[in-house]
Amino acid sequence: MARQEKETGGVEWRITLGDGSSKSLVPETGPVSRVWMGLKSLIAGFVLKVWKFLKKAWDIGVDDPRKVIHCLKVGMALTVVSLVYFTRPLYEGVGGNAMWAIMTVVVVFENTVGATISKSLNRVSGTTLAGFLAFGVHWVASQSGHKFEPVVIGASVFLLASAATFSRFIPSVKARFDYGALIFILTFSLVAVSGYRVEELFDLAHQRLSTIIIGTSLCVLVTVLICPIWAGQELNALISRNMDKLADSLDGCVEEYFDHNGELEDSDKQPGKNLIGYKCVLNSKTTEESMTNFARWEPAHGRFNFKHPWKQYLKIGASMRSCAYSIEALNNCVDSENQAPEFIKKHLSNICLKVSSNSSCVIKELAKTIKTLKKSSSIDFLVEEMSGAVQDLQNEIKSLPNLLRPAELLLPKSKETEKTTSTIYLLEVIPVVILVSLLIETSSRIQDIVKTVEELVNAAEFKAEDDDKAKQNQANMSRIVPSQQDDDRQTEKALERV
Amino acid sequence: MARQEKETGGVEWRITLGDGSSKSLVPETGPVSRVWMGLKSLIAGFVLKVWKFLKKAWDIGVDDPRKVIHCLKVGMALTVVSLVYFTRPLYEGVGGNAMWAIMTVVVVFENTVGATISKSLNRVSGTTLAGFLAFGVHWVASQSGHKFEPVVIGASVFLLASAATFSRFIPSVKARFDYGALIFILTFSLVAVSGYRVEELFDLAHQRLSTIIIGTSLCVLVTVLICPIWAGQELNALISRNMDKLADSLDGCVEEYFDHNGELEDSDKQPGKNLIGYKCVLNSKTTEESMTNFARWEPAHGRFNFKHPWKQYLKIGASMRSCAYSIEALNNCVDSENQAPEFIKKHLSNICLKVSSNSSCVIKELAKTIKTLKKSSSIDFLVEEMSGAVQDLQNEIKSLPNLLRPAELLLPKSKETEKTTSTIYLLEVIPVVILVSLLIETSSRIQDIVKTVEELVNAAEFKAEDDDKAKQNQANMSRIVPSQQDDDRQTEKALERV
Repeated sequence: MARQEKETGGVEWRITLGDGSSKSLVPETGPVSRVWMGLKSLIAGFVLKVWKFLKKAWDIGVDDPRKVIHCLKVGMALTVVSLVYFTRPLYEGVGGNAMWAIMTVVVVFENTVGATISKSLNRVSGTTLAGFLAFGVHWVASQSGHKFEPVVIGASVFLLASAATFSRFIPSVKARFDYGALIFILTFSLVAVSGYRVEELFDLAHQRLSTIIIGTSLCVLVTVLICPIWAGQELNALISRNMDKLADSLDGCVEEYFDHNGELEDSDKQPGKNLIGYKCVLNSKTTEESMTNFARWEPAHGRFNFKHPWKQYLKIGASMRSCAYSIEALNNCVDSENQAPEFIKKHLSNICLKVSSNSSCVIKELAKTIKTLKKSSSIDFLVEEMSGAVQDLQNEIKSLPNLLRPAELLLPKSKETEKTTSTIYLLEVIPVVILVSLLIETSSRIQDIVKTVEELVNAAEFKAEDDDKAKQNQANMSRIVPSQQDDDRQTEKALERV
Repeated sequence: MARQEKETGGVEWRITLGDGSSKSLVPETGPVSRVWMGLKSLIAGFVLKVWKFLKKAWDIGVDDPRKVIHCLKVGMALTVVSLVYFTRPLYEGVGGNAMWAIMTVVVVFENTVGATISKSLNRVSGTTLAGFLAFGVHWVASQSGHKFEPVVIGASVFLLASAATFSRFIPSVKARFDYGALIFILTFSLVAVSGYRVEELFDLAHQRLSTIIIGTSLCVLVTVLICPIWAGQELNALISRNMDKLADSLDGCVEEYFDHNGELEDSDKQPGKNLIGYKCVLNSKTTEESMTNFARWEPAHGRFNFKHPWKQYLKIGASMRSCAYSIEALNNCVDSENQAPEFIKKHLSNICLKVSSNSSCVIKELAKTIKTLKKSSSIDFLVEEMSGAVQDLQNEIKSLPNLLRPAELLLPKSKETEKTTSTIYLLEVIPVVILVSLLIETSSRIQDIVKTVEELVNAAEFKAEDDDKAKQNQANMSRIVPSQQDDDRQTEKALERV
């Protein structure tokens, strides 16, 4: 920084004054002031960086206050576990090994209940299993004489550590017991090798296990009792939120296509944000998988049973991604340079908008089904409406060639001219035909989503909506009023924060 | 199992003999034999399960022997670190805290060099930083009297643990220093809280740091010296392999479309496997991201410098995914029920196949560029060829309407009949037009990949291919002979195993 300052020190800075003349700004060139200025800009840059970092952190906290609560929970759990050190009877009860409890809290405490329970169970069972095995090995080693003891222990550590490490490559083990395998290696090596030096090996293992149990129980208690974040609930909310995003993208995309150069640019809508919502669906596979894994460890909570079919959410996610792929293709049509002539667009506009709004209604109804965990009474009706609209659209496309030669019946033409005209129209009509076929493809993929959600509804035995409410819904269903959408979004946000 | 056996025990099994009569198969019904059979089927089921698991594990090992080597490396590192226990001077040198070294090896040793180095540096720096801070806090606490000491320590643990936990939510921290933050919390809590009980706190911290340094150095040495697996090299190979898969999918997909119900079904080709290769590209985002993160920690290795522009690989990956989306759409065309009439397909077959094979040549050349880290001399030529083919295809589509009424010039027809025929053709031609437009879209996305790869070539200053070889390449380039493809694949496999 200081060096740069020196280099630019040779440049003359001029400022133009009011009367047209210019005045040279000569910097003070004393070496002290140069260093001072370099230092100042260095500090300013650093402060700015720190400020930006804090601003970002603040935004993250404001955006999702539950993250802040999680941090406070971790702090609390650690402070509580420190009490083991501060109270003499407890400290001596675990023979000075209290640090294992602290360590357990640090590594086991995760953001969601499922992850914490999964890590806790892994840690306890890995430790227990490895402890027993290490005792066996220690006994064998001690029987084989002082000279061979290190050899037996070394060989067993080598073999078991290699095998356990390998097991972590097997997908079924990796998904659920990765951490357990790590802890197994850790405990086995520690206990087996310590046996060579430590006299009271049984006490060591016993203390390690009891401190780990103290740590894990504390973690599970804190994570369940204080503002719990359930992986299952999160997964449910994620899928439902992603469905809403899919619906918005689909709607926004088709609207944008037909409003191109139209009202949309003047209005104060922000289509960009809605349009790319589907990308969240494309990128959420990993999150869904880990959430599903954690959700399976969770006890019954809120409206979810212990045996809630979490794996079905993966299928729903996959069908949503498949639908998102065709929305991605639709989106490309919108951005494409080749556009159909306005009169054809106008002709197809209404029916296409109807298909897209019916389709997005179906998705939104599915989102509601998942959000409320209630069997929808209107989904069949909505799917039928969507299919009807798709059928209409197909008919409309079949009648398109009639539209292509509107002048034909009015003036007599030579074969040649007509052929050329028709050629031009055929080429021009291609973009809109592609859009239409993608729209139809999308609606058929939405039906796949409907199927996977129905499987969920059956497997989890969702109850039906209240009858009165259902009838009212059916009446309202053909149009979704904006205020209702807003309500939905607020409910969702509330749900997220629960 | 035994109960089920009992229930089915009441059913009579009959076997029909050669002469038409049937004979009842009466099972031995003694209670001992029943329990025995139940037990037997239980054991058989268990053995089968274990056998399947072992088979799977074996397959994983055979598929990628480097995984087995990694496991042996872990076993070896652990055995070596156990020597600290077995040699008295070393054990006493670290004051009986040798278990920290073992623990470090278990948690720090990762599959790739980059991941191991990243975890090692995180662990060492997290421990050092937290150690110093904990000393400061301990000093302040000890000055504030015996009564307030626990309060000061507890409050500092609460605050710092919360803050460090929160930092793990910030993406830039999470990507590179997640583990460091965890270790920071761990060490700070341990040292600060231990200060209340342990007299020689400085020795504790010093021993912890030195054992951690022993452990991490051992890990880094073993991972670098014995069959190293470099994250960077893996990333490079992954991207190049994925490109080949993209090319194969594109080729296979277009071939399948035009060979539908044709030769392909009779031949012993297995198109299914090639066709879905693009799905690997869609699913490899997370892997690419973590590999990039690890690669940035790695020193210069093989043909990669320390400052190799690894981040550019993320851009290449993104452009490949964008291309994969349109191949996914292409693939749907192939599976679609609506197919264009055979004569139109036949008419367009050659030019479409040319576009797809030119496009896949471009991708394969890019794959080669990345694999060999040499600037391709023929890529411009290949891209030009692809653009030429695309232009031809566009011209062909423009002349399509002429083809639609081939009978028109032969027989005179009423306007009405002609119109109907043309209508039918227009509808029938749509599927192939969609395919063509997707093919054109794909090739324009391939040009995006070319751009991102060129950026990599410039940023990493790839050298040009040998001139002789380049000329030969240019001559060979328009056709890729199968044997060459096989060679490529073998090179790639060899590269993977390096």
